[in-house]
Amino acid sequence: MNTVELIRKKRNGGTLAPEEISWLINSYIKGKIPDYQISAFLMAVYFKGMTTEETAALTRSMLYSGKVIDLSTIEGAKIDKHSTGGVGDKTSLIIAPIVAATGINTPMISGRSLGHTGGTLDKLEAIPGCHTNLTLTRYKSVIKKCGTVIAGQTKDIAPADKLIYALRDVTSTIDSVPLITSSIMSKKLAEGIDGLVLDVKTGNGAFMKNTADAKHLAGSLIDTAKAFDKKIMCFITDMNQPLGHYIGNWLEVYESVICLLGEKSNDLMTLTHNLAGAMIFMGGKASTHAEGIEISNEMIANGRAYDKFIRMIKLQGGDISYIKNPEKYPKSKVSQKIPAQKSGYFSKIDTYALGMASLELGAGRVTKEDTIDPKAGIIFNIKIGDMVLKGDVIAEIFTDRKHKVEEVVNKINSIIEFTDNEPVKPKIIREIFQAIFSSISLLYFPLHYFT
Amino acid sequence: MNTVELIRKKRNGGTLAPEEISWLINSYIKGKIPDYQISAFLMAVYFKGMTTEETAALTRSMLYSGKVIDLSTIEGAKIDKHSTGGVGDKTSLIIAPIVAATGINTPMISGRSLGHTGGTLDKLEAIPGCHTNLTLTRYKSVIKKCGTVIAGQTKDIAPADKLIYALRDVTSTIDSVPLITSSIMSKKLAEGIDGLVLDVKTGNGAFMKNTADAKHLAGSLIDTAKAFDKKIMCFITDMNQPLGHYIGNWLEVYESVICLLGEKSNDLMTLTHNLAGAMIFMGGKASTHAEGIEISNEMIANGRAYDKFIRMIKLQGGDISYIKNPEKYPKSKVSQKIPAQKSGYFSKIDTYALGMASLELGAGRVTKEDTIDPKAGIIFNIKIGDMVLKGDVIAEIFTDRKHKVEEVVNKINSIIEFTDNEPVKPKIIREIFQAIFSSISLLYFPLHYFT
Repeated sequence: MNTVELIRKKRNGGTLAPEEISWLINSYIKGKIPDYQISAFLMAVYFKGMTTEETAALTRSMLYSGKVIDLSTIEGAKIDKHSTGGVGDKTSLIIAPIVAATGINTPMISGRSLGHTGGTLDKLEAIPGCHTNLTLTRYKSVIKKCGTVIAGQTKDIAPADKLIYALRDVTSTIDSVPLITSSIMSKKLAEGIDGLVLDVKTGNGAFMKNTADAKHLAGSLIDTAKAFDKKIMCFITDMNQPLGHYIGNWLEVYESVICLLGEKSNDLMTLTHNLAGAMIFMGGKASTHAEGIEISNEMIANGRAYDKFIRMIKLQGGDISYIKNPEKYPKSKVSQKIPAQKSGYFSKIDTYALGMASLELGAGRVTKEDTIDPKAGIIFNIKIGDMVLKGDVIAEIFTDRKHKVEEVVNKINSIIEFTDNEPVKPKIIREIFQAIFSSISLLYFPLHYFT
Repeated sequence: MNTVELIRKKRNGGTLAPEEISWLINSYIKGKIPDYQISAFLMAVYFKGMTTEETAALTRSMLYSGKVIDLSTIEGAKIDKHSTGGVGDKTSLIIAPIVAATGINTPMISGRSLGHTGGTLDKLEAIPGCHTNLTLTRYKSVIKKCGTVIAGQTKDIAPADKLIYALRDVTSTIDSVPLITSSIMSKKLAEGIDGLVLDVKTGNGAFMKNTADAKHLAGSLIDTAKAFDKKIMCFITDMNQPLGHYIGNWLEVYESVICLLGEKSNDLMTLTHNLAGAMIFMGGKASTHAEGIEISNEMIANGRAYDKFIRMIKLQGGDISYIKNPEKYPKSKVSQKIPAQKSGYFSKIDTYALGMASLELGAGRVTKEDTIDPKAGIIFNIKIGDMVLKGDVIAEIFTDRKHKVEEVVNKINSIIEFTDNEPVKPKIIREIFQAIFSSISLLYFPLHYFT
């Protein structure tokens, strides 16, 4: 085969055969094809897309560039959840223990924060002592002992994805549906799971800005899961405001703990119970999604989810005294409350900009090498549709970067809109698609089924 | 500036500022931007194109990545011709001496054969002793002494083009109008010329397969010439059959010599006189294009073009005894005549495949490292519209590669079509566009003005 001809074929809108895709990826990871040809190929894929079969072949090549973790010695269903990333999304930290508490294994290979979005690994590592860089042996041992584990991608997991993702990051080829699909699915399939619940976020704080793009990605993810005979359920959810109220690594652990203690009920928990309920249903512990949601609520109410969380954190080396006594956690040098500058209904926020503001405070990374301040972040008190009076505290920021405070306060004030008339409150769950059984046609839950 | 952002801007259909393009190219040639980012950028340009201003900025950055040859000490106008490449196109070898014979300087920086097309440098080098790899001093000396020179691109001429062309070649980003335009124009402008005549070929033996693409390229070349305040005249010409009858390096030198001796009049000479006439007009030695064509014919008839050719070859080190006595040139091990397999009107040929057949015989290169057999090639006797009788010799092939003969004979038979009804003979010149004066609007010669 000839790399130039394969690039040309894709560039001209042609369909590559599975063996052509596999040759391209294998030759690339062996160093036989240089970066500059693969980056041109990726840009051609950006413009011309891929068929379902091509996306599945790309996923397969990336998956088998590394190991598939063998969890066959661990009893019970293995179900994971993946989110496409947003602001304030700490659902993994709450869902993993809920689902594990029902007896379903939830192995999670998660990512780090980059750009405006947070990363589950960085949140976990905000807990002193907690490790996410686990060996395969320790990974298996943690899941065997408590039914869940949250860890980073090792070098054995889809190394082709690691290489290609790094190349996409520097060549503006991140936001391509087949490339996103193969990146997510190759890592998730490597976990050795039976089923996957996907949270595709859409809105001004998500990578997919509109519902059409989000649906396109959801369709591609579902098709690929079907090609690998895996159960899948896909949620299209709202990211036009932060999820929950806390943004920043330790702040999000703190909010997760409050939620696990059953002390909160909001959009975050609506989404959490929907996703966890889907996993419980998919893992065979409920006969419907609705029943799964009920069980998820029970796992919070009876304290078993919280217990699982404590166990998992301990097994991953975390000091749970900070979970039990959050007030002992180090404080930021500066905390500043932001009062509303006018009265009215909170109607709109630039969620991407809010994520970037949190990054400015120290909670995120501009480059992969940047270090994170786990204490830094934002508590954002209001939800779209809330009535706010001038002077009400709408947000509080935490940072060690004193010189950033004024800039960030002004930024937050500038990205928030108020109206005189009550706006429609956005529904957290927009649509649900599922393909639970390997042979089935796609079931479709109409808009606003669960909201 | 940020490379990723610039790639994204182009990918999203945005327009780059001149300083952004110049930063990108300068950083690339300094090694500060890696190949893999530039190849992604080139693929984005392939899909999203460039505005006139962007193309001019790209041309300027590539031009000033090297030296502009200073010919100011040489009296008289400096006019060059460039062809986008075809099969059997040896017009440069005839035009350069014709135009120089009128007192206009014709400095030509030419290219080598690659793929199905021939290269002027390889043709010249078929003459024993003839050099095309000239130093700048020798280049200037040759043009000063005889008014013309044909040489290769030195490392001082548009080095960014050399780098980018090599990258395009291996990333399927050759056939992009702004990239072709900037590559041609940066090299031609570096010659220190006042005006340029362009021959944009279209048809099954050209890079531009259809007239719309050829016109698009012509428009881009004209706009770029205008941006640099250069005179330009652009011909869209037919490449649905080989130009003239000889294909192969020495064979094309031989046909050029016959033409310079005034012994031939065919499509090749129609095109030659049109292009040379345009250069003579542009260089101020004729008051109209038509008068330029008359003068071009005179230069053949009075022998001055032939004399110039001999002088130029001598100055470039060539042994002119082979020009004067072509029969002493070494012969190929095999020559084989191909008889027509049926009677009828010759109606169609796959010109690209004919060029590739010549390459198979040894006349061309598959990779840049391949060596060329200057003797190898094809004499192709017939023109579309000719009546052919079964058994007539339609072609003769020359090669040292005995094992290729049968394959090539079969190939040539398979790519030729005959019909019972007389087909329309294609006109060699399809359209002419010109922008002679720096301030003018574009003049347009209607279809078939000169044919």
